[in-house]
Amino acid sequence: MVVCLLVAILALTSSVVSAYDPSPLQDFCVAAKEKDGDPKLVKPEDFFLHVEPGNTDNPNNAQVTPVSVSVDQLPGLNTLGISLARIDFAPKGINPPHTHPRASEILIVLEGTLYVGFVTSNQDGNRLFTKVLNKGDVFVFPIGLIHFQLNVGYGNAVAIAALGSQNAGTITIANALFKANPPISPEVLTKAFQVDQKLIDDLQKKSWYDTN
Amino acid sequence: MVVCLLVAILALTSSVVSAYDPSPLQDFCVAAKEKDGDPKLVKPEDFFLHVEPGNTDNPNNAQVTPVSVSVDQLPGLNTLGISLARIDFAPKGINPPHTHPRASEILIVLEGTLYVGFVTSNQDGNRLFTKVLNKGDVFVFPIGLIHFQLNVGYGNAVAIAALGSQNAGTITIANALFKANPPISPEVLTKAFQVDQKLIDDLQKKSWYDTN
Amino acid sequence: MVVCLLVAILALTSSVVSAYDPSPLQDFCVAAKEKDGDPKLVKPEDFFLHVEPGNTDNPNNAQVTPVSVSVDQLPGLNTLGISLARIDFAPKGINPPHTHPRASEILIVLEGTLYVGFVTSNQDGNRLFTKVLNKGDVFVFPIGLIHFQLNVGYGNAVAIAALGSQNAGTITIANALFKANPPISPEVLTKAFQVDQKLIDDLQKKSWYDTN
Amino acid sequence: MVVCLLVAILALTSSVVSAYDPSPLQDFCVAAKEKDGDPKLVKPEDFFLHVEPGNTDNPNNAQVTPVSVSVDQLPGLNTLGISLARIDFAPKGINPPHTHPRASEILIVLEGTLYVGFVTSNQDGNRLFTKVLNKGDVFVFPIGLIHFQLNVGYGNAVAIAALGSQNAGTITIANALFKANPPISPEVLTKAFQVDQKLIDDLQKKSWYDTN
Amino acid sequence: MVVCLLVAILALTSSVVSAYDPSPLQDFCVAAKEKDGDPKLVKPEDFFLHVEPGNTDNPNNAQVTPVSVSVDQLPGLNTLGISLARIDFAPKGINPPHTHPRASEILIVLEGTLYVGFVTSNQDGNRLFTKVLNKGDVFVFPIGLIHFQLNVGYGNAVAIAALGSQNAGTITIANALFKANPPISPEVLTKAFQVDQKLIDDLQKKSWYDTN
Amino acid sequence: MVVCLLVAILALTSSVVSAYDPSPLQDFCVAAKEKDGDPKLVKPEDFFLHVEPGNTDNPNNAQVTPVSVSVDQLPGLNTLGISLARIDFAPKGINPPHTHPRASEILIVLEGTLYVGFVTSNQDGNRLFTKVLNKGDVFVFPIGLIHFQLNVGYGNAVAIAALGSQNAGTITIANALFKANPPISPEVLTKAFQVDQKLIDDLQKKSWYDTN
Repeated sequence: MVVCLLVAILALTSSVVSAYDPSPLQDFCVAAKEKDGDPKLVKPEDFFLHVEPGNTDNPNNAQVTPVSVSVDQLPGLNTLGISLARIDFAPKGINPPHTHPRASEILIVLEGTLYVGFVTSNQDGNRLFTKVLNKGDVFVFPIGLIHFQLNVGYGNAVAIAALGSQNAGTITIANALFKANPPISPEVLTKAFQVDQKLIDDLQKKSWYDTN
Repeated sequence: MVVCLLVAILALTSSVVSAYDPSPLQDFCVAAKEKDGDPKLVKPEDFFLHVEPGNTDNPNNAQVTPVSVSVDQLPGLNTLGISLARIDFAPKGINPPHTHPRASEILIVLEGTLYVGFVTSNQDGNRLFTKVLNKGDVFVFPIGLIHFQLNVGYGNAVAIAALGSQNAGTITIANALFKANPPISPEVLTKAFQVDQKLIDDLQKKSWYDTN
Repeated sequence: MVVCLLVAILALTSSVVSAYDPSPLQDFCVAAKEKDGDPKLVKPEDFFLHVEPGNTDNPNNAQVTPVSVSVDQLPGLNTLGISLARIDFAPKGINPPHTHPRASEILIVLEGTLYVGFVTSNQDGNRLFTKVLNKGDVFVFPIGLIHFQLNVGYGNAVAIAALGSQNAGTITIANALFKANPPISPEVLTKAFQVDQKLIDDLQKKSWYDTN
Repeated sequence: MVVCLLVAILALTSSVVSAYDPSPLQDFCVAAKEKDGDPKLVKPEDFFLHVEPGNTDNPNNAQVTPVSVSVDQLPGLNTLGISLARIDFAPKGINPPHTHPRASEILIVLEGTLYVGFVTSNQDGNRLFTKVLNKGDVFVFPIGLIHFQLNVGYGNAVAIAALGSQNAGTITIANALFKANPPISPEVLTKAFQVDQKLIDDLQKKSWYDTN
Repeated sequence: MVVCLLVAILALTSSVVSAYDPSPLQDFCVAAKEKDGDPKLVKPEDFFLHVEPGNTDNPNNAQVTPVSVSVDQLPGLNTLGISLARIDFAPKGINPPHTHPRASEILIVLEGTLYVGFVTSNQDGNRLFTKVLNKGDVFVFPIGLIHFQLNVGYGNAVAIAALGSQNAGTITIANALFKANPPISPEVLTKAFQVDQKLIDDLQKKSWYDTN
Repeated sequence: MVVCLLVAILALTSSVVSAYDPSPLQDFCVAAKEKDGDPKLVKPEDFFLHVEPGNTDNPNNAQVTPVSVSVDQLPGLNTLGISLARIDFAPKGINPPHTHPRASEILIVLEGTLYVGFVTSNQDGNRLFTKVLNKGDVFVFPIGLIHFQLNVGYGNAVAIAALGSQNAGTITIANALFKANPPISPEVLTKAFQVDQKLIDDLQKKSWYDTN
């Protein structure tokens, strides 16, 4: 019996398991539900997933549907270093400023019109790179940089994003700052944003939608 | 003046330039046409590309339209480790058995019905993993394994493939074996495929379509 | 004559040059001012730099002094995948919420008392991990996560931070959002932070200190 | 007690276990049969293996004897990113066209005369690079490219191949196409090779020798 | 429940556990004492460690205090690819010639005066690069090269070293050669150092201090 | 015209050029003598080298013949991450204690009898792992560890070593310590080896053979 490395996964595991993105040492290394990870038990379904359009009936009027490694979703992606997401936007829908700590991204628009952009690091002068994208347009967001997409067309918009990690992670700036649990000390936030504590209190009390 | 590393590119260069896929050391490292690669000259268009549907009027009845790094196409992708392709299939169109020597792939079907599959290595017993995919279905092809897609629906099909390299490369098996230039010695091919030289001669004389 | 790879650097270059962090292929690969990068010309000074305490007389009451690769500063660090920073804090000084897109960080306090923390990604629930650090205390900030340090002691504070890249980059959240050049469309920011345009206008007009 | 990472290997495991090739974090990380992987139990034999000449009495008249990581063979190779193979050729023996999905290769001829070659990717024009090698000659096969060796001398031939992965994998083209289990749909193969179904049926019925 | 990869660690483990240094696939992957590595159990203390000045009352008159990954010390460092060390020197204290097989190093002097240096490989001519460092001075030691530090000032000296691996390893040359267990055959050492066996015998009988 | 990355090599360059070992972004990236690195000019000879038995008529009675990347030798190896060496030993010949800072090694004995070994790091207790190898025996030396080979048979011995870098580097301990240029301060060496200055003076005056 052959045992695949990335397998110390318990039977009830419902989420991401892997830990590194380099080139694999076997043809695949499925994040198996079975404790022993025997490759002989791997089946085509481990490499397959169906993705439905996202429900945009939420405060962002947009929904990111990730296709990343997961024992319940796409275990065959384990160790392969890539993932996808489908992003649906209702009119005025926003995928708010966020970073992916572990991946660069390429986005292709399938439908609609998006205003997209990223901001460079301090060392590069915090330059903003933006573009309005239509169907068939592609845009690149380098690893770790803050970026966003806003539906500026009249109808819905749909995009596919490819990410250079099996588990890129997402840090929505507003959520990380104002929905952190426990909350970040207001002293940090008032100083950082040069605003008064009342505003920070208000922001920390708002409801922030969980973006994927 | 700041100079980006991967830049020893001449003014007339019209194609891929980079050489390695690891994590970048700068926000980006655009494969610039300008000799000095000054980041200050980088502009949003360096991260932007428009992709048209492919023309499937060819022997494969299918067309792969790559979105990979290129000085003329998408120089902003340089050093970011990912790329995309749009694949269009007319009825019965095929993306014939091929490998990507430098990337795993995730494919999502936008339209139509595809029979897709990959074969594992000798050590794993050359097992075939296949699936019939419809709109919204996703399938994973691990790095270096032989895989294919065939349109088995009644109409056209369209898919987006994400690849884990800025320049994955493609080796179409038939082209590499029978269209190699100069030709592979028939003695190698007759022994390898247990066929007679007449067949190999015929195969080497056929016209093989250049898949991307 | 031997030529080191990472050397297409012009004589007047005054800033970062490298592009990748993997393991080197030579003993060193100094980011040399001389065009030909001849290792025989490399000297001990290429591996040496003197760091003075930072001037905290600025709006943050804190100063980050980076020791990263640079033709003028520490060219010997090129290709070695690490860097340092000294951080000086006056009383109430802050190193405001920021991320390093290309490095994890370990910080050791040399003097004073710091309140430090980081926030995890959306997928992990935006949990806040904090600690009050005194002299000799060490804290870890994982790659790409938003983190901060605030001097909560009565006197000055000093810390050394080690970073896992020769050029980690810094994205100060406030600067990237409100000092981006050109400015991010207010529509993106009002939606993202659920505030009115007046506040965004005010924030975009503030003076934001350039943190390293 | 210290526990090495790559160790979730059961006592009866008879084959490859690891999953990644980067630089190790410990002096070694033996793929131990003992469940707890205690480094104190590691012994010189874990780094040792004896290789006999291969038996070339088979349809290829050649035999590849791999020296790669394996709990039963050379567990000390785990995490070290290299492996070896000895290849024996009887007269007219062939190591038929194949790829290694996870490694480049350097081959040195110990005895005899080999005609060797590789074919580049579609993007490079499927160019063939060949050479006739004699004792002491070395040739390089880049990662993922289709390559082959044929004994064109009068006597036996022997070569040593070094591979840049502890588990490079081998995909013999004929086996992957015609011996896949279950078989690849003939529709894919007839279209891909522009031949009739009769030929594909014949090829799928042949006996294909299991190359390592 | 989510399970982190690098976790096959037993409850009594007292030392290093991880095995590779690439970029992580999760926000963190704490080397947890709990068998299941549930991220929800991770706490700020996992990223925290207090470092005391080292006791220099030993034959080297110097002490290296490592801050590297360890289940008992700093489990939060797991997978993040960096570590620190504090080095204390009494007058004439020495950190004798050694290599780190898995990391480059940057050292910053906090106090005192050190004579430091490294020697390049045979291919580069075994050149010596040295410098006398004072407070605030920084020096770089490239991966795998033999290097040393000697306190040449009148008082104590203190330095912080940053290392590009969570577990860099240390090979003190004298210890590896003369304290190896079992001892290296004297025939190897007499030939290698062109000395007589009496001297090797003497060296192998000396007491060698265990440097970290 | 296509330009390969690693090419800023001058026409007269006679030695190693590359700088990093990760997976390539093109089929190959020949370290070309021609300034523009045009892949169309690459030829089979770039991947070919002939290796003669080494001349053992030297103080070590052994000779290492490296097959690593070099513009004049084997430019096709550039970016592929592996190399070879042939090692010839006369009776009592020694490849003295050394490390490779950038590669693990597998050695296979073609002829003769070798006593080989490596010593682990301080953290592992400086354990010695040795074995006597005969024809067909294989032994593994992990990256960065001190190791050696001694011919303990009656006749000559020959071995092939595979290394996991295109330019592994060699640090012969005696040469780095006693032949460093300029010499290491005797104060460092007397303290490090607990010997008197007379012995160090003698050792620094000896003639040390340049091992590859």
